[in-house]
Amino acid sequence: MFEAKLANAGLLKKIVESIKDLVTDAPFDCSETAMSLQAMDSSHVALVSLKLEVGLFDTYRCDRTINLGLSLANMSKALKCANNDDTCMLKYEENEGDSIIFTFADPKRDKTQDVTVKMMDIDSEHLGIPDQDYAVVCEMPAGEFQKTCKDLSTFSDSLNITATKAGIVFTGKGDIGSSVVTYSPSSNTDDETEAVTLEVKDPVNVNFSIKYMNQFTKATALSDRVRLSLCNDVPVVVEYPIEENGYLRFYLAPKIDDDENMD
Amino acid sequence: MFEAKLANAGLLKKIVESIKDLVTDAPFDCSETAMSLQAMDSSHVALVSLKLEVGLFDTYRCDRTINLGLSLANMSKALKCANNDDTCMLKYEENEGDSIIFTFADPKRDKTQDVTVKMMDIDSEHLGIPDQDYAVVCEMPAGEFQKTCKDLSTFSDSLNITATKAGIVFTGKGDIGSSVVTYSPSSNTDDETEAVTLEVKDPVNVNFSIKYMNQFTKATALSDRVRLSLCNDVPVVVEYPIEENGYLRFYLAPKIDDDENMD
Amino acid sequence: MFEAKLANAGLLKKIVESIKDLVTDAPFDCSETAMSLQAMDSSHVALVSLKLEVGLFDTYRCDRTINLGLSLANMSKALKCANNDDTCMLKYEENEGDSIIFTFADPKRDKTQDVTVKMMDIDSEHLGIPDQDYAVVCEMPAGEFQKTCKDLSTFSDSLNITATKAGIVFTGKGDIGSSVVTYSPSSNTDDETEAVTLEVKDPVNVNFSIKYMNQFTKATALSDRVRLSLCNDVPVVVEYPIEENGYLRFYLAPKIDDDENMD
Repeated sequence: MFEAKLANAGLLKKIVESIKDLVTDAPFDCSETAMSLQAMDSSHVALVSLKLEVGLFDTYRCDRTINLGLSLANMSKALKCANNDDTCMLKYEENEGDSIIFTFADPKRDKTQDVTVKMMDIDSEHLGIPDQDYAVVCEMPAGEFQKTCKDLSTFSDSLNITATKAGIVFTGKGDIGSSVVTYSPSSNTDDETEAVTLEVKDPVNVNFSIKYMNQFTKATALSDRVRLSLCNDVPVVVEYPIEENGYLRFYLAPKIDDDENMD
Repeated sequence: MFEAKLANAGLLKKIVESIKDLVTDAPFDCSETAMSLQAMDSSHVALVSLKLEVGLFDTYRCDRTINLGLSLANMSKALKCANNDDTCMLKYEENEGDSIIFTFADPKRDKTQDVTVKMMDIDSEHLGIPDQDYAVVCEMPAGEFQKTCKDLSTFSDSLNITATKAGIVFTGKGDIGSSVVTYSPSSNTDDETEAVTLEVKDPVNVNFSIKYMNQFTKATALSDRVRLSLCNDVPVVVEYPIEENGYLRFYLAPKIDDDENMD
Repeated sequence: MFEAKLANAGLLKKIVESIKDLVTDAPFDCSETAMSLQAMDSSHVALVSLKLEVGLFDTYRCDRTINLGLSLANMSKALKCANNDDTCMLKYEENEGDSIIFTFADPKRDKTQDVTVKMMDIDSEHLGIPDQDYAVVCEMPAGEFQKTCKDLSTFSDSLNITATKAGIVFTGKGDIGSSVVTYSPSSNTDDETEAVTLEVKDPVNVNFSIKYMNQFTKATALSDRVRLSLCNDVPVVVEYPIEENGYLRFYLAPKIDDDENMD
C-alpha cells in the first residue's frame, strides 16, 4: 500500500504541468524516503529527474518499494479537478486493481472529490547520472532565466552561454539580428530572491538547443530560483528546488557544433 | 408600445450570453407584469425558461401583450456595445417598423448610444410545464456546480447524480478513469452563499448529458446560487434566481439507459 | 553617429505596436531636433506621421541627419525583449555596419540586454502634408473613441461622423441593424481627461472606412486623449499626443460615396 498526502494539490499540479509536454509516460518510484521519477523526453535528448522527499508530505506511507506508471496527460486531467488549496491524497492498493486514487478535499467545505486514474506498464530504465564537478554554478531568479530564454528564442534556435568571474552572458544569433543578455554577479545581495550569484572555477562556453530550455522553464511556477550547473562538453543541469525537500532537474547535452546545426 | 429600462445593461448581457449558444431565435413575451421567454434548444432536448418581473426594471410600460422575436446573436452584438454599468432602455413602437431600439447611457457622461436591431418572425410554441413535486431539491454555490460539471466532463459524457439524506454525489466514468464528487449537506450554515442545502423526500439516482449541463452553467455569472430540482425519470430543473424578481431555468430530461449511450 | 536614450522602453514598444500592422518597413528620419517617421500604409490609403522630439529623450545625439530603415516586425521583436520600465538606448554607428543596437537596462539589476537589428534600404517618399484649416476639432478620451469605432464595426464597414455645435455623432448602419453614438460637448469640464470638447466652425458630415479607424485606435495605449480634425471632403487627422513632446498622427481620406461602397 502507498498513501501520501500533500497539503496543497497546487504543488503536484505545477510539477505535472512542467514536465507533461516533455515526458508522456511517467514511472514514479515510491520508496520509504521519497517519491521520485526519472525519464528521458520522448526524443531521448533531455533527462528529467524529480525527487519529492517525505518532508514535503503531510502524511506518507509506503510499505514496500513500488513503481507506479502514469500517463502524465491523464494525471494532469485529474489534477485540474483540484483547486490549488485543496489537500491531495494519493492512494494505491495492490489488491484493488491497477488504479491510483487522487482524493481532493477542500478543508473549508464538506466536499471530497475522488479521481481514479488507470495505471500503465512503463519500462523504467534507471539511468545512472555520474557525479560531476561543475566548472560554473549560477543561481538566478527563475523568472529572469525564463524571460531570457524566451527572448533569445525570437532570434535563434541556439543558446550560447558564456560564464566567467565577470558575469554570465546568454547569446542568441540569427538572420534578423541577435540578442546578448549580460548578468554581472549581484553586488547588492540584500534581496536574496533577486540576486544573481556565480561560482566560477573555470570559464565555460557552451551551446544548447533553446527549444528544450524553453520547455524546462515551464517549471518557473515551482520555484523563485533556478540553479544552472555548467561545464564544457557536459550536460547542463537546470534545477528548480522544491520547498527544500526535493527538486526538479533537467539535464541537456550541449550542441557539439552549433554552426553546422540547422534545426 | 413597449418600453422598459434596466439600471445596468450588464444584467441583460449576462442573460443573453447564458443562452445564446443554446437558443438561436428568441420569442420574448412582454406582458404587463413581466418579460418572459420560453424556448427549446435547437436540437429540442433542453428547455429554457426566463422570467424578468417588473420589479427588476427601473421603468416598465407595456400597453398590450406582445411578442418580440429577436436573434440572440444580434441581441448579443447590440449588448456588447454597452458598458455593464450603462443604463439600458428597450423600446418597441408598433408603428415604427419591425425593430427594437436599445438605448445605452452612461449616467456619468453626456453620451447615449442607440442600437437598432431588426426583429424576426418566430413561431413561439407555448409549452405547458406541468407542476411537479420533486423528490430532491439541492441548493449550492453556482460556481461549485459549474466546476463539478466541467471536471466530470473531462472523464465522461454522462453525469450521474445520486442524492440521499446523507449527501449529493456527482459521478463521471470513462475510459481513462473516473471522478466522484461528494457534497455533504453543510453542517455550518453561517455562510449562506457557500452552503450546500439538501431537501430529500425520496432518494434519487439519475443520469444526464453532461454537455447540456455545461451549457446551462454559463448562467453562473447571473447568480451566486443554483437550485437543482430532481426526481427519477423526470426532467431536472437547473434554476438561477435573478435578483429575487425573476429566474432563468433550464429543463433537461434524464438519459434513459446510460450504459447503452455512446455519445 | 546617432544615439538616443528613452527612460522607458515601454513608450517605443507602444508606438511600434500601434503602427506595425499598418506599416511594414519604416524609414526613421533622425535630425538634431527630432526622430520622425512618415509612411503610407501598405495599401496606400492611410498615412502615418510620427514625431518624437528631443524633449522625450533622456539623452539625444545626432551628428548629421540620417535615415534609418527598419522592419517594424523586427523592431517589435527587439522591443518585446525589454521590460516596460527598462531604459532603452538606440545606437547607430556609420562604420559599424548596417545595424541598430537597442540596449535595454534594468536600473535595479546588474543586467543589460543588447539587441542588434539589421537595417534595410527603404525608399522614403516625403509627402508634403498641406496646412489645413479644419471645420471641426474634437478632443475626447482615446478609450471612448476606440470603443465607439469597435462597436460600430459590429454593424457596418463605414463610419459616418456628423458634427455640429450640438454634438458629435458616430453612426454605423448595416443589415442586422444600426448603432448611433452621440456625444454632447461636456458641460462638466472638471475632469479634463474625461471631457469631450468640440470646436465647430462649420458643420461636418463625412464617411470613413471603419477598418482603418480600428487600426488607428491601437494607439490608444499611447495617450489618454485623441484629437479628431475634420473637414468635408478632406482627410481626417486622428492624433495621439505623446507626452507633450511629440505625436502619432493618422490621416485617412473620406469615402466619396458610402452607399456605393461595398467593402
